[in-house]
Amino acid sequence: MTNDSRPTPPQSGGKKAPGTRRVTSGELGVPHREVILTNGEELRLYDTRGPHHEGSGPFDVTKGLPPLRAPWIARRAALAATTGAPGGENVSQMHYARRGIITEEMRFVAIRENCTPEFVRDEIAVGRAILPANINHPESEPMIIGRNFLVKVNSNIGNSAIGSSIEEEVEKLTWSVKWGADTVMDLSTGKQIHETREAIIRNSPVPIGTVPIYQALEKVKGRPEKLDIEVFLETLHEQAEQGVDYFTIHAGVLLRYIPLTAKRVTGIVSRGGSIMAKWCLAHHKENFLYTHFDRIAALMKKYDVSFSLGDGLRPGSIADANDAAQFGELITLGELTKVAWEQDVQVMIEGPGHVPIHKIKENMDLQLKHCHEAPFYTLGPLTTDIAPGYDHITSAIGAAIIGSHGTAMLCYVTPKEHLGLPDKEDVKQGMIAYKIAAHAADLAKGHQGAQDRDDALSKARFEFRWEDQFNLAMDPEIAREYHDATLPADAAKTAHFCSMCGPKFCSMEITQQVRDMVNSEAAASEAGAAEAAARGMDEKSKEFVEKGAEIYSAPAE
Amino acid sequence: MTNDSRPTPPQSGGKKAPGTRRVTSGELGVPHREVILTNGEELRLYDTRGPHHEGSGPFDVTKGLPPLRAPWIARRAALAATTGAPGGENVSQMHYARRGIITEEMRFVAIRENCTPEFVRDEIAVGRAILPANINHPESEPMIIGRNFLVKVNSNIGNSAIGSSIEEEVEKLTWSVKWGADTVMDLSTGKQIHETREAIIRNSPVPIGTVPIYQALEKVKGRPEKLDIEVFLETLHEQAEQGVDYFTIHAGVLLRYIPLTAKRVTGIVSRGGSIMAKWCLAHHKENFLYTHFDRIAALMKKYDVSFSLGDGLRPGSIADANDAAQFGELITLGELTKVAWEQDVQVMIEGPGHVPIHKIKENMDLQLKHCHEAPFYTLGPLTTDIAPGYDHITSAIGAAIIGSHGTAMLCYVTPKEHLGLPDKEDVKQGMIAYKIAAHAADLAKGHQGAQDRDDALSKARFEFRWEDQFNLAMDPEIAREYHDATLPADAAKTAHFCSMCGPKFCSMEITQQVRDMVNSEAAASEAGAAEAAARGMDEKSKEFVEKGAEIYSAPAE
Repeated sequence: MTNDSRPTPPQSGGKKAPGTRRVTSGELGVPHREVILTNGEELRLYDTRGPHHEGSGPFDVTKGLPPLRAPWIARRAALAATTGAPGGENVSQMHYARRGIITEEMRFVAIRENCTPEFVRDEIAVGRAILPANINHPESEPMIIGRNFLVKVNSNIGNSAIGSSIEEEVEKLTWSVKWGADTVMDLSTGKQIHETREAIIRNSPVPIGTVPIYQALEKVKGRPEKLDIEVFLETLHEQAEQGVDYFTIHAGVLLRYIPLTAKRVTGIVSRGGSIMAKWCLAHHKENFLYTHFDRIAALMKKYDVSFSLGDGLRPGSIADANDAAQFGELITLGELTKVAWEQDVQVMIEGPGHVPIHKIKENMDLQLKHCHEAPFYTLGPLTTDIAPGYDHITSAIGAAIIGSHGTAMLCYVTPKEHLGLPDKEDVKQGMIAYKIAAHAADLAKGHQGAQDRDDALSKARFEFRWEDQFNLAMDPEIAREYHDATLPADAAKTAHFCSMCGPKFCSMEITQQVRDMVNSEAAASEAGAAEAAARGMDEKSKEFVEKGAEIYSAPAE
Repeated sequence: MTNDSRPTPPQSGGKKAPGTRRVTSGELGVPHREVILTNGEELRLYDTRGPHHEGSGPFDVTKGLPPLRAPWIARRAALAATTGAPGGENVSQMHYARRGIITEEMRFVAIRENCTPEFVRDEIAVGRAILPANINHPESEPMIIGRNFLVKVNSNIGNSAIGSSIEEEVEKLTWSVKWGADTVMDLSTGKQIHETREAIIRNSPVPIGTVPIYQALEKVKGRPEKLDIEVFLETLHEQAEQGVDYFTIHAGVLLRYIPLTAKRVTGIVSRGGSIMAKWCLAHHKENFLYTHFDRIAALMKKYDVSFSLGDGLRPGSIADANDAAQFGELITLGELTKVAWEQDVQVMIEGPGHVPIHKIKENMDLQLKHCHEAPFYTLGPLTTDIAPGYDHITSAIGAAIIGSHGTAMLCYVTPKEHLGLPDKEDVKQGMIAYKIAAHAADLAKGHQGAQDRDDALSKARFEFRWEDQFNLAMDPEIAREYHDATLPADAAKTAHFCSMCGPKFCSMEITQQVRDMVNSEAAASEAGAAEAAARGMDEKSKEFVEKGAEIYSAPAE
């Protein structure tokens, strides 16, 4: 049960009703999902869904979200103009952080992540985390990407030549954040690229990323050799003005790396990477994104657009993983990170791709080494090539593993990857698989808040509190539906059994009885629980049988 | 395209037609799946589907499969009776192996696994692998479980109190093996337990496992305290006579471990484990399966039933992973392994369960240490508890990881785990997720045959050979369906683009062009490919543009 389908407002002046809903709190309006359990306990979960999902019914796409951050941004601008405080020509969160300033965005993030604002500031200052927050996207709820925070998930949307409408893209956006997307990339390449992006940004509670080379290419009528830094900067300017929060830029595709891809099984699979490779070969010159990188950074700092340094040479198959082209580019991305940081521009690094399990850790190790601990943002990786139609699973395996090693954000993959354009159900399946991967990684990193949710759900499971299990689940609707498929009756929601074993064969129920016995024995014995059970007393045995040693318990009424 | 839906028999006397089908070869009739690619190449894949799936249409459940192994078993029995050769009182594959004998089953397995029969024999002799093959299940196609072979997957079927029919269970069996199940466990607890098992065994091309305590409990009317070794041995005898290939036996649930579970979040979640725990507490005596373990082994060697030593104290939640109860039992299972091996009875060890990623490896390390390298057989593990409805994914992540560390067989988990009884679609989803996990583990272990399939599919992908991609995919039907959802036309099957980017924006196509350019440059230059691209010659550049530096290529006709 989510409050989208069945809103359960808190009862006024008394105990809160069991259920789950989005709540915003404090002067900053920080959101979380509140889960009230039937045993009176309460759990607060991270929430990405934004105000559209507060149960207020259908919303007007043309209206956009309220500009949450507008007053903060305006105040800082006024301060810079009148007192010369930081934030004039450079408004990046890194710029503030390096000057010791804690912004509202940092405080917001600290509440969401349950840490101190100082910690948030320091992680941003050293470049170990980014807070993507274009000043022209005031609708966004601040979030942070870094390996000392919760692992994040990105969802890709966007139309293509075989297209979809603006409304469909906005719907994919709100659908993505409903299922937990922390950022969304608009990868549109088709018509109405500007208008689609505008609608997405105005309606997005999460940071929006783009790959500007796609639009730049449109501007030169699809001829990559006609691209140059001027048309590229013009594109960046246009998108930065709209409010894009991070740009994927393939500045690491250097001329000398391109021949290293010629003998690969799948060559260059990144669209941006192949465009730049073609430009380099056509001109026999170095990548203009690389040679003009400082100009790009100078533009981005004025808006606080973050770099997502693209891995244009990522492997597109298991055979090509961890090769010279891939790791050559990674070293260059590390070099560019330092250039961006000289201007206090925030940076994250994109990673593969297709990597077999035994080669995953090397990716993380080398990224940390070469890229100075800038956050890593990987696409999967897929751990095998042989399951088209199930690449959300082949890649969730890799994502969970690389996340547990320290990758800060995971770019989702849908079941349609390699086969077709994802529809709404594919987006959901991709999101769920990746939220699982991210959460499994959080657990592996010892995140207490993550562990609390597992414990709460397992406790509810052991105590047959079905409603609580549903509310705590990643997908409450499906959990309920699957349960009800076999046992639809309302009584079954509190019954001490489920359909797997039926009423007469439940191990959980049996364990409860075992536990009760051990406990009562322990209480009766000074020797304590560990020895009590081992005494082998015939009396105890008889007593147990007399008390009714029924392994089969009747279903609860 | 599988031959179930569209059989493509080889053309007589000429080139084989592209497609995929089951083929059996040699005097032993070893099956494999043959994939003929459109470029004339051929790939042989491991096949579990059995003769029911040879495209001969619906089959008669009451008839059963042909008894492939019957003559081998009969010959050995005759030899033992007339010459005193091994195989009189002890017919286990381990018994033969330890006497240097290579059985037909071992030769069969060697062909399937592409290794020598001697290697198979030696792995069985030292207990590092098992070949489950009850002499009363001659219908089975021999297979091997061990960490130096392909990772295997088990599917669970079986009715329960809230039941299903015999026909339904046989259908789940054939459905499981269609999707790659290497063994199937019949976990029936409901009515017609004997008849259901009989139908399953007679129709199964893969080894069948059971948990005999379930039926033993039925025999004492569901009162665990009434269980004893005699009724248990009687049950084993009945099931061994039918042809069950391995028994899960919870002989490691010792009295002293039970109190260690009392403070767990989810106590004892294994049904067999909780039954034995209740017996131990009721009698205040040691587990009778433990105290009479040698008698159990003595019965099993007469049929060559393998032990699957049950982990009755496995963790049922992330919170309970790797605790004292679990690892205490593991040490006992190692002790019992040696007892079974004294009688040449084959053994594998069951493992968890629910384990967070950072605690998975310890399970494999301790299992290898305590259980003397007997094969490990794990249920997942689930890497988080919070996604009921998606536990095939939460657990495929854990399964791939523990498989890559050396687990020999993975017990699948379906999306309905914790919620309800799996239907056919759930069985398929569970199987696919686990075949992915097993294959990803094979790749991680450096299995060349596994890598060949990935390479063949990726090569087909890069060359836009869609039909070959479908035929090489884990699920050809879904791969085709997803592709056709956006581009249904037959022409699209050979088009040099797909719906993700459309005809005018394909990175694979662009890469082909890059590759051609690099190659032609390399050919023209004595300096070789690595330097060719870096020369920056204006002439080359002009030449390229003149040749038509079109990044957009028209779709192939």
